[in-house]
Amino acid sequence: MFTRLVESLAATEPLSRVFSDHSVLQAMLDFEAALARAEAKCGIIPGAAAEKIAEAARAEGFDLDGLTRLSLRAGTPAIPLVGMLSARVRAADPDAAGFVHWGATSQDVVDTALVLLLRQCRGILARDHERVLAALRRLSDEHADTVMLARTLLQPAPPVTFGLKAAGWLAGLRRGWERVCSRFDEALCLQFGGASGTLAALGDRGLDAGEVLASLLGLPLPDAPWHAYRDRLAALMAALSIYTATLGKMALDIALLMQFEVAEAAEPGGEGRGGSSAMPHKRNPTACVLALSAARRVPGLLADFVGAMVQEHERAAGGWQAEWPLAHGIVQSAGVALESMAEVAEGLTVDRERMRSNLDATRGAIFAEKAVMMLAPRLGKEAARKAVEDAIRETGAPPGLPGLDKPEDYLGCAETFRRRLLEGDR
Amino acid sequence: MFTRLVESLAATEPLSRVFSDHSVLQAMLDFEAALARAEAKCGIIPGAAAEKIAEAARAEGFDLDGLTRLSLRAGTPAIPLVGMLSARVRAADPDAAGFVHWGATSQDVVDTALVLLLRQCRGILARDHERVLAALRRLSDEHADTVMLARTLLQPAPPVTFGLKAAGWLAGLRRGWERVCSRFDEALCLQFGGASGTLAALGDRGLDAGEVLASLLGLPLPDAPWHAYRDRLAALMAALSIYTATLGKMALDIALLMQFEVAEAAEPGGEGRGGSSAMPHKRNPTACVLALSAARRVPGLLADFVGAMVQEHERAAGGWQAEWPLAHGIVQSAGVALESMAEVAEGLTVDRERMRSNLDATRGAIFAEKAVMMLAPRLGKEAARKAVEDAIRETGAPPGLPGLDKPEDYLGCAETFRRRLLEGDR
Amino acid sequence: MFTRLVESLAATEPLSRVFSDHSVLQAMLDFEAALARAEAKCGIIPGAAAEKIAEAARAEGFDLDGLTRLSLRAGTPAIPLVGMLSARVRAADPDAAGFVHWGATSQDVVDTALVLLLRQCRGILARDHERVLAALRRLSDEHADTVMLARTLLQPAPPVTFGLKAAGWLAGLRRGWERVCSRFDEALCLQFGGASGTLAALGDRGLDAGEVLASLLGLPLPDAPWHAYRDRLAALMAALSIYTATLGKMALDIALLMQFEVAEAAEPGGEGRGGSSAMPHKRNPTACVLALSAARRVPGLLADFVGAMVQEHERAAGGWQAEWPLAHGIVQSAGVALESMAEVAEGLTVDRERMRSNLDATRGAIFAEKAVMMLAPRLGKEAARKAVEDAIRETGAPPGLPGLDKPEDYLGCAETFRRRLLEGDR
Amino acid sequence: MFTRLVESLAATEPLSRVFSDHSVLQAMLDFEAALARAEAKCGIIPGAAAEKIAEAARAEGFDLDGLTRLSLRAGTPAIPLVGMLSARVRAADPDAAGFVHWGATSQDVVDTALVLLLRQCRGILARDHERVLAALRRLSDEHADTVMLARTLLQPAPPVTFGLKAAGWLAGLRRGWERVCSRFDEALCLQFGGASGTLAALGDRGLDAGEVLASLLGLPLPDAPWHAYRDRLAALMAALSIYTATLGKMALDIALLMQFEVAEAAEPGGEGRGGSSAMPHKRNPTACVLALSAARRVPGLLADFVGAMVQEHERAAGGWQAEWPLAHGIVQSAGVALESMAEVAEGLTVDRERMRSNLDATRGAIFAEKAVMMLAPRLGKEAARKAVEDAIRETGAPPGLPGLDKPEDYLGCAETFRRRLLEGDR
Repeated sequence: MFTRLVESLAATEPLSRVFSDHSVLQAMLDFEAALARAEAKCGIIPGAAAEKIAEAARAEGFDLDGLTRLSLRAGTPAIPLVGMLSARVRAADPDAAGFVHWGATSQDVVDTALVLLLRQCRGILARDHERVLAALRRLSDEHADTVMLARTLLQPAPPVTFGLKAAGWLAGLRRGWERVCSRFDEALCLQFGGASGTLAALGDRGLDAGEVLASLLGLPLPDAPWHAYRDRLAALMAALSIYTATLGKMALDIALLMQFEVAEAAEPGGEGRGGSSAMPHKRNPTACVLALSAARRVPGLLADFVGAMVQEHERAAGGWQAEWPLAHGIVQSAGVALESMAEVAEGLTVDRERMRSNLDATRGAIFAEKAVMMLAPRLGKEAARKAVEDAIRETGAPPGLPGLDKPEDYLGCAETFRRRLLEGDR
Repeated sequence: MFTRLVESLAATEPLSRVFSDHSVLQAMLDFEAALARAEAKCGIIPGAAAEKIAEAARAEGFDLDGLTRLSLRAGTPAIPLVGMLSARVRAADPDAAGFVHWGATSQDVVDTALVLLLRQCRGILARDHERVLAALRRLSDEHADTVMLARTLLQPAPPVTFGLKAAGWLAGLRRGWERVCSRFDEALCLQFGGASGTLAALGDRGLDAGEVLASLLGLPLPDAPWHAYRDRLAALMAALSIYTATLGKMALDIALLMQFEVAEAAEPGGEGRGGSSAMPHKRNPTACVLALSAARRVPGLLADFVGAMVQEHERAAGGWQAEWPLAHGIVQSAGVALESMAEVAEGLTVDRERMRSNLDATRGAIFAEKAVMMLAPRLGKEAARKAVEDAIRETGAPPGLPGLDKPEDYLGCAETFRRRLLEGDR
Repeated sequence: MFTRLVESLAATEPLSRVFSDHSVLQAMLDFEAALARAEAKCGIIPGAAAEKIAEAARAEGFDLDGLTRLSLRAGTPAIPLVGMLSARVRAADPDAAGFVHWGATSQDVVDTALVLLLRQCRGILARDHERVLAALRRLSDEHADTVMLARTLLQPAPPVTFGLKAAGWLAGLRRGWERVCSRFDEALCLQFGGASGTLAALGDRGLDAGEVLASLLGLPLPDAPWHAYRDRLAALMAALSIYTATLGKMALDIALLMQFEVAEAAEPGGEGRGGSSAMPHKRNPTACVLALSAARRVPGLLADFVGAMVQEHERAAGGWQAEWPLAHGIVQSAGVALESMAEVAEGLTVDRERMRSNLDATRGAIFAEKAVMMLAPRLGKEAARKAVEDAIRETGAPPGLPGLDKPEDYLGCAETFRRRLLEGDR
Repeated sequence: MFTRLVESLAATEPLSRVFSDHSVLQAMLDFEAALARAEAKCGIIPGAAAEKIAEAARAEGFDLDGLTRLSLRAGTPAIPLVGMLSARVRAADPDAAGFVHWGATSQDVVDTALVLLLRQCRGILARDHERVLAALRRLSDEHADTVMLARTLLQPAPPVTFGLKAAGWLAGLRRGWERVCSRFDEALCLQFGGASGTLAALGDRGLDAGEVLASLLGLPLPDAPWHAYRDRLAALMAALSIYTATLGKMALDIALLMQFEVAEAAEPGGEGRGGSSAMPHKRNPTACVLALSAARRVPGLLADFVGAMVQEHERAAGGWQAEWPLAHGIVQSAGVALESMAEVAEGLTVDRERMRSNLDATRGAIFAEKAVMMLAPRLGKEAARKAVEDAIRETGAPPGLPGLDKPEDYLGCAETFRRRLLEGDR
């Protein structure tokens, strides 16, 4: 009953390891172990009980089928988890079993586990982000002088350089990743509040226990529990979605450049990539397609996450419970898009000659704006525009004017913008 | 690397069986086996080859890990599937291997497999739908005379019956299911078009092969392949989403009625249901919460599906590839909501006395409208309204007027509407 | 304080007339007038009062600024509307004023008004739908033999005809419109239930009043009021969204064909169309862009509508109140996409020669699949695939085999499918 | 043809002024005037021409109907705007007319206008944000000791204080507003790139012109034009959506507290607020409902905005053009929710006695957790849990244990958390 195949285009191996049953269970157990130790350190529960709990809190040997099935019954994985862990502890030390999950609530373990898993994802995503950035920087520098058509509304426009194009992708991703990082910084914090978010069951030692627990898990302590306040997570999900959409923009550009009729760039056809089950000649933009597919999925997942933020009182009846699959879907989408575009950026083929010949094929029509501007002072703008349009209609090109034939001379600030984008001031 | 736990509140066991790796693979293999047989029957490939292919097309023994991993590389499960199936056939009969997937394209097998899986889901959903409908009909009849407060904008309003309320849920679900069925009827059809949707590789026998293939799979044949036309599937997804939202409405009503301060109804606290990891006293609306959670997820999944409909030319670069996880998510959401609310409907506790006492506690304020209407002919409406408001402000109740004290006498057409809703004319 | 400019790319003139303040107000007044007459006919209110109310129920002279402002205060337009209408009636006949809105509730007038407005929209959309269908049928027939490249994942694939492509658009729109019509049929019905949906304030004459009211407004009577059941409207919104997405698919295909490097088709550059504020040479796919833009907006609006279906008890606290702008946005998006694509379909330029030369430029690589299939019986499929790939790598074309050079001979069932799509059996 | 009424629950007056036709037009004209002046200052166009252009760039007297209609035709408001402005300038000085919009592109004026409008919105939203924060701080301090039930999954849980609840709202809104502010800081920057984003038409004076232009408009200059990079705007839209959802959470809590059966708090029934068209007795949570309605709309609008980020090359064909109505919708939703909840926070009625009596009505069941923890060391946890559950089943209350009867003594860290939330460290 594993449903990986139906999600196979939407999940990467390293992220699937993080979200595997074993890993999710271990994250929840890590919370329970650290909780017991923190409470023992604060004199809330006996130290011996804490050690027994910590020893039992290893994912190996848990009945994952049963846990999954009972989670649906209970409406939360926490209840069967606590039951199973208690049973394990009881087998080793009946007295210790009663101290499992002491003073905590379902959401404490479920939310903190999610935070621990997201922390692992951050590292995985960061590595691929660095790969794509390094590759784009190299591409941009290599092609600082590679002139190509700009295209607006999918129609030719005055020239840019491929170096500027790559710098645009890079800067968009850098801005996106900075937002992702600041949202990770904000969202990765401990959840610990007990039944009503007041730690009341722990008496006057709740605050200390929270501090020790946070320290054991290496997580910051927020101002207060955030059971019904999902804004930090939602902001992280939004940042990841926006970052994924920027990867989608890069993928779309490359897929368009790979069209047979354009043929200015191509993603690398690595092992298992780019084939067709019917057509042996094809070189499909497979990695770009995977990124585009991921960018198609994030908007709705994000909408659901933001919609689910409207949560009742101290713990939600539905909104909170909807989150895990949504967060999983968004992180995996970001991961698939990133892994795919890192591979594309590192192996992209750029065809300078084809870029030039496509540009030349426009026969100078892309300089029409400049031609109008050159004629306007003499003829007036309307007459200039008409003269240029007539010339294009009749000859396919604007009227011959000095300085209009070399695209290299019509790049304006392309190189300055390229360098600024790479430096990334703002 | 199974990620069931993170999806544990969002998937039912019977539907997870349908979408299990084994089942998805078998659906694809069923297509390939039927394709080979259909082509053999039409004289396109040798009959012996078809039999070898059909024999090899059993999910047992396939490398599901490898298939999942290679699917991501290839951007489609079809390419590695065809490779693996061909290898199997080759081991038995080298000559037959070349006829695997003959003349078909990735999308033919992937889309038809989805259709075959959705057909299985239909049966599962139908059974739970019948359960919930039967239970609601019984509840509605039992409580045809059970008077309770209506609530508008979460404030008390003139009385209804619980029978009418249950009939409203029933009718919404019946209308929803009728739409689901008509969309299933439309969407469950064969996908078979070959590389460009023209079956060109099959020469003049493509049409015949399509007909035999459809017949072998028990699927209707559409006018033409629908590789880039996803409207039938999207309409099914919309119908399932709307149906799930109606289940969410029913769940919200019941969760609100279950509030301690209202306490007019309660979902059954079956095995493993309704508990709290912190609070032993609690009776949580767990099943309702699961349905509400499902209703939170469908809107965005549907949005993504509809957004992905804008597909390029004869096969999409991203839109199509985004669909499987979205369809899976929507069907599972419908399934979770339905299974949960079937259990709720079958075991719902209704507290007539509490309904009455909550109503009585309003001290007749809910008859204010009627009081105004009774006084209006004499005083004018403005003065009547003022008189009633003054009385409520001073005494908590509208002025005593004949016929205003019995909620049973102020039910209007409640019973007629209830019966019409059960009959379901429109 | 009119905000048309910021919505100028997202609204058509005919639909803006339907949703204009005057028209929306008149729709609400039409309900109130018909209600009064129906109640008079059933002996519930005096006939003279009904006539005064009907006379006053003309949108001219109402303070639309005030109504808009007060609607936000009241959380519904119904309350200030009833106040203003009552004031008008009072000026003419103080006794009649008290009978305005007799026994009805806010949602009765607001929902019925929406239904009346949607009925007007249906006619407007239907006219443009007929235009686009007629134009596509003509295009499809004209180009039944116009051979062009198929394109899958934005890469060349074996040939299709432009006639088949146009037939695909047509059939998608026809299926979409059929769904829209069946949802209009379902959704366009009277809302009339009074405070709690029981018509209790009307005593035993509520049912009769409802029937007369429905008949006066020319609307079917549903089984019961549907204050908290929005599934019919949601299903209509879904159908309109899916229809709009199909228009978006057609627009994307054409915008891609209009690329300078492809240049196989072009939308007509009518008055005010296709220009650029900077570049006089440009022929932008402006109408396609408007349709694509509309298709970008519908998914989220639909998600919000479906999300808002989870409504509390007998009248929602938020979900219902969110609907008007969403329904307005979806209908306008459908309208903009449809008006744009009707113009495109009627004036589309198709360049047969360019289609042919783009196809020829692939030098037969698109027949690689067929080449493999022809060589496979002799060499085995793997060897055949390798031979073809080697040949393409070396010479740019598959090996010369009999019958591989004429795309006309490799169209398979294109014409059969085209005709079936035009006929539209399934 | 103004469609305000249909949007009347979804727009505030101050924001509608910002997005009024006059204001939108003036923002575009402000760009054109500043552009001319900047270019004159840099010696690109004659100073006299710039002055004529600046003089003509006043919204008064423009044909707004025509501009709206022509914008739809052109697929952008920029083209008819430039035409109309040029005509005006021409009437005053034919030579100057040709210098209108010199070297700029449609997106430069349209995007910068949006930025200028959003800057105005920021101030309006900031004022209401301060109102709600001040009011919540006051409420929280006043009710630091007001004990009430916590509610989890809509069921009673151990006590909190109303002061803590208000502090939770406050902290969520403060975090949300900080994100909004940092996204405003990032997104409010000049758009100026010319046809292809290189400012090529301005030769070597493009950079200088950009700097002067940014300075004249008081906007920061980004690294490079961002025609096809919408991440800054999307991040702002996400922040506004998340902020609105937090307002929705506050509104939902209050609407639930306002239920007749709960009656612990009530929004103020100001002028025109809270009424019912049918029921004179009602005190509806109207302002909360408006906020909830706004929170219902943002998720889908945000999804559409993020979905539209996948834009082609140097200017999008559809994605960009979809943005204005989406941004308008999100900002207005935030504005409606904020204005509503500011009014609610400032006038909220809190019923301490009712909070206490609702709590008392649970007869101590909410201390069940504590009772188990107190008995556990002696009985073992399972036996303790059973003992407590038995006692509750039999007597409705947990067994009498010392220190279990006073909710004031079971508040744990409520006050510490409250103060930390108000201080807002993290």
